[in-house]
Amino acid sequence: MSDLEQRLQTLEAESAIRKLKAQYLNACDAKDPEAIRACFMEDAVIDYPPLGEFNLDGLIQIFTEMAVNTNIVDTHQAHNAEISIDDDTATAKWNFSYSMYDPDSKNYRLLTAFYHDKYQKTDNGWLISYTRSEPRSVVDGSLDGDVKGNWIKA
Amino acid sequence: MSDLEQRLQTLEAESAIRKLKAQYLNACDAKDPEAIRACFMEDAVIDYPPLGEFNLDGLIQIFTEMAVNTNIVDTHQAHNAEISIDDDTATAKWNFSYSMYDPDSKNYRLLTAFYHDKYQKTDNGWLISYTRSEPRSVVDGSLDGDVKGNWIKA
Amino acid sequence: MSDLEQRLQTLEAESAIRKLKAQYLNACDAKDPEAIRACFMEDAVIDYPPLGEFNLDGLIQIFTEMAVNTNIVDTHQAHNAEISIDDDTATAKWNFSYSMYDPDSKNYRLLTAFYHDKYQKTDNGWLISYTRSEPRSVVDGSLDGDVKGNWIKA
Repeated sequence: MSDLEQRLQTLEAESAIRKLKAQYLNACDAKDPEAIRACFMEDAVIDYPPLGEFNLDGLIQIFTEMAVNTNIVDTHQAHNAEISIDDDTATAKWNFSYSMYDPDSKNYRLLTAFYHDKYQKTDNGWLISYTRSEPRSVVDGSLDGDVKGNWIKA
Repeated sequence: MSDLEQRLQTLEAESAIRKLKAQYLNACDAKDPEAIRACFMEDAVIDYPPLGEFNLDGLIQIFTEMAVNTNIVDTHQAHNAEISIDDDTATAKWNFSYSMYDPDSKNYRLLTAFYHDKYQKTDNGWLISYTRSEPRSVVDGSLDGDVKGNWIKA
Repeated sequence: MSDLEQRLQTLEAESAIRKLKAQYLNACDAKDPEAIRACFMEDAVIDYPPLGEFNLDGLIQIFTEMAVNTNIVDTHQAHNAEISIDDDTATAKWNFSYSMYDPDSKNYRLLTAFYHDKYQKTDNGWLISYTRSEPRSVVDGSLDGDVKGNWIKA
């Protein structure tokens, strides 16, 4: 492979990883478990404290319980990508913001975190092989009355 | 065109579309109708429920009424881009967040939505040919007293 | 240099500048002064009204006072990048959002701004040579009682 093609391939990898992360986060918002599943390696490790560490089936299960089977409306948005490509693997750090509202309880949650991710190039394109969230702040409140929020460094 | 050049052109298209969307959103914040106009095809279709469906003149008109001629301060930010290039056309899904404050009424609005866009490559570069927003959550409140917010799945 | 290589280099510059800005903002969140320093030219000009205009040592000093030596938790996220490359220099406009919470006073701040940046390609890669923030909205409040927020066009 020529030097130019190698450089092109690195940029294509970055583009694919940006899109992959977007697909995962937008699928979470859309409550689409199959689209979430399609973003990960089968043996991916998903470490989302304080919820726990999951394999892919475990992630789909807790996501189904917490989002698909409830009336919550939530938003997952990632920013400030620091992506590093190394041939067929890659890493990224993202700055993440999240909002959730539960119309049944009228409670809301606002959260920020870093994501620390690893990616693998496969025959099905780039996939997430490892992801860990590092919670940074949490605000819990209610639209129903007094602000009962707290903002903790997680 | 060589295979390498074709791949390069696809990456350039993605770069141009990211910048185009940024120019549009930043022009909205800056209350600059001419900069907004420059982002669209002349026959673009703009579907922003519940506001309505607009042609380009209609968009400029309602934007002038709601933003240029008022004292509101608002912020348009798009995230999680899923961009697909197909030669001279492209599509994208974005995860959008919006905040608005009206210093006259002291009311604010926080909104999230998906954007579903189509783009066209023209002699003037890439332009938006179609855009539709899919509202996901709305919080309305006032800084003047009790929180009178509500958070609806739109 | 061939035309193809020139075009590739422009895309690589954009990629590097996106990562540079991300590194700077994530280093602010992580309260890491040395990582902040590494993002700037030694003679960089940093204009952050109403805080003031700083050289690099001045920025590190005020950052240490306001963030490193306090218990605040804050989040710096940039969006809507309008990046323009011109050989070994570049400019960008960003749409910025910021949140801060002080667990000692229970006060919080939400802020939006434009960033107007200049970058320089050096032997150490792309660095920030100039950055100016243009504040757009500020909300100050407290989680401790009544909302005492205000939202001003800065």
